[in-house]
Amino acid sequence: MRHDPSPFSNRVGRLRSGFPETDALLILGEKNIRYLTGFTGGDGALMAGPDWLTLLVDGRYVTQARADAPGAEVFEFRKRADGIAAVAHQHKVGSIGFESPVLTVSEYLKLKESLPDVSFQPLPPSFEFLRAVKDEEEIDRIREAAQIAGKAFAAVREMIRPGVREKEIALDLEYRMRRGGAEQASFETIVAAGANSALPHATPGSRTIADGDFVMIDYGAVCGGYHSDETCTLLVGSASERQREIYRLVLEAHDRAIGAIRAGVSCGEIDRIARSHLNEAGLGNLFSHGTGHGVGLEVHEAPRLAAGREEALQAGMVVTVEPGVYLPGLWGVRIEDTVLVTDKGCEILTRTSKELAVI
Amino acid sequence: MRHDPSPFSNRVGRLRSGFPETDALLILGEKNIRYLTGFTGGDGALMAGPDWLTLLVDGRYVTQARADAPGAEVFEFRKRADGIAAVAHQHKVGSIGFESPVLTVSEYLKLKESLPDVSFQPLPPSFEFLRAVKDEEEIDRIREAAQIAGKAFAAVREMIRPGVREKEIALDLEYRMRRGGAEQASFETIVAAGANSALPHATPGSRTIADGDFVMIDYGAVCGGYHSDETCTLLVGSASERQREIYRLVLEAHDRAIGAIRAGVSCGEIDRIARSHLNEAGLGNLFSHGTGHGVGLEVHEAPRLAAGREEALQAGMVVTVEPGVYLPGLWGVRIEDTVLVTDKGCEILTRTSKELAVI
Repeated sequence: MRHDPSPFSNRVGRLRSGFPETDALLILGEKNIRYLTGFTGGDGALMAGPDWLTLLVDGRYVTQARADAPGAEVFEFRKRADGIAAVAHQHKVGSIGFESPVLTVSEYLKLKESLPDVSFQPLPPSFEFLRAVKDEEEIDRIREAAQIAGKAFAAVREMIRPGVREKEIALDLEYRMRRGGAEQASFETIVAAGANSALPHATPGSRTIADGDFVMIDYGAVCGGYHSDETCTLLVGSASERQREIYRLVLEAHDRAIGAIRAGVSCGEIDRIARSHLNEAGLGNLFSHGTGHGVGLEVHEAPRLAAGREEALQAGMVVTVEPGVYLPGLWGVRIEDTVLVTDKGCEILTRTSKELAVI
Repeated sequence: MRHDPSPFSNRVGRLRSGFPETDALLILGEKNIRYLTGFTGGDGALMAGPDWLTLLVDGRYVTQARADAPGAEVFEFRKRADGIAAVAHQHKVGSIGFESPVLTVSEYLKLKESLPDVSFQPLPPSFEFLRAVKDEEEIDRIREAAQIAGKAFAAVREMIRPGVREKEIALDLEYRMRRGGAEQASFETIVAAGANSALPHATPGSRTIADGDFVMIDYGAVCGGYHSDETCTLLVGSASERQREIYRLVLEAHDRAIGAIRAGVSCGEIDRIARSHLNEAGLGNLFSHGTGHGVGLEVHEAPRLAAGREEALQAGMVVTVEPGVYLPGLWGVRIEDTVLVTDKGCEILTRTSKELAVI
């Protein structure tokens, strides 16, 4: 199924209009290239002039590039830096705005050598907001991804019991998401039981679930390139008072943050709300990461919901809210939803209940 | 299961001995960090002085870093560039050798600003050979990965018939690899039928297999972090003369290249042997990628078996051999094995037969 080409030309136009004085923009991020052209392959580069658009790919991707990206001219390179230099020469480019968080130093040094008269200007940090506000079609895909993931999770929940290995649960969950229509898992599914749940980014291993374990499951599905992201922390068997208390505090932090989300509020304010609640309970130093991040063609993208981020949320942004408390060597709790920012609040796209489930 | 720490200190020692005059080496590649320390998390940095080794991670990974990498001091950062600068100050570093193909321009500019008196030197291209020669334990893991993948493929082969969708085969193959003990698939499995097989890097979709299709399956498994990589191209139903002829030519190119592999032969020579065979048949322009690449902690790593690469193969290197011919809009054939270079030749680690299978 081919996409309608129109979203791509609109997106390129919006991008170009932000940099009227730069001869060419050099886009290297794979997801940005996909967003701007529809090209789903790898290792490419996109150059956008005032009235031209060239997608540079190596020999492996020429056929695919022509099919995926009818709105761009396709240029075949052997070495990417040489291709970029050739296209810059062809269009007599004097200045290039480039993605400095993506371009590597080795390629940068080659480009400066090949194009000694060209001025290279890092695109400003605001560039990373290119994909932050989603259109209806993008939101539908994220919603669909969240539904598929949630349905798979509901089916897998029943296998979570003492004696089952973390990685069996992770595998079954990923398999069910794909059977349910996901292209792939959003990331390597985290299933972390007991002390492993104290690691915010655990890899599922051969640890078996035991009575009294928190089991933290961080998972998501990809549909049409778009990701969902959700974390459920379940309790197996009997819960201690301390476990119930920490779970309650994390859930309150999560709920307060979600309750504060709406267009116009700053990203840092959402983080502050979640963090101050845990700080007041003396747990702030155990909440070792930001409160959330944007979700879209990448599972982590702009905006960041973290201390000091002054950017305002906008309607159409899709972000996670995921406070967590981690007691090293003991256990941890993280509760995460993906939500759509609206003018008046937000819509929670990940629909699994976050009330404490003791199973 | 913890690794014996000794391979890590030996590897760091070997790395450091190559750069005796550089105060500190800055390692950013995730797999290089894993290779040198055992740390399996992400987003870190490793700094290696003459007599000190510091693993820098953000708050999410502190607990894991201490457990994974007992040979390194763990330093927690909020922003990676700030952490690197702090460690450089602490050790009064005057020169830093860094991975220029990994460091981004944005982080590089921040580091230069924070450390104005430090000389930054890109590590030479030979640095990418750090992991190229594998030890026995590494080879065992790749062999195991190849065995798991091959066994899963044998089971999945029976479902390849007209009417089955590409993505069903891909999903089943990945599921069986993981059930068989793989941590994950080496990469998104390629199952490309009919005209899709003319795309060297197709994504499995909802195309159903039809009689007369070539079905190209490029797959691999990961064990203990190590990858396998193998491509089988099967023919469903009846083969045309042209299909048989092209398959035979690609298989001959593959066999000749493998027959030439042994320690001491240059990487470019292996590519030349495969390519010249296809050139002689007038198919050279349809073989649009290199002949092979190293395989290990990454599925693509040094060495590259491509035109002009003068590096000599060494015993213990593990490389793919994967010539292909792609007829745009029609079909393609790629035949790939992963092999271990030895002093006298090579050992094929991927054991699925590459004779034309018409099923």
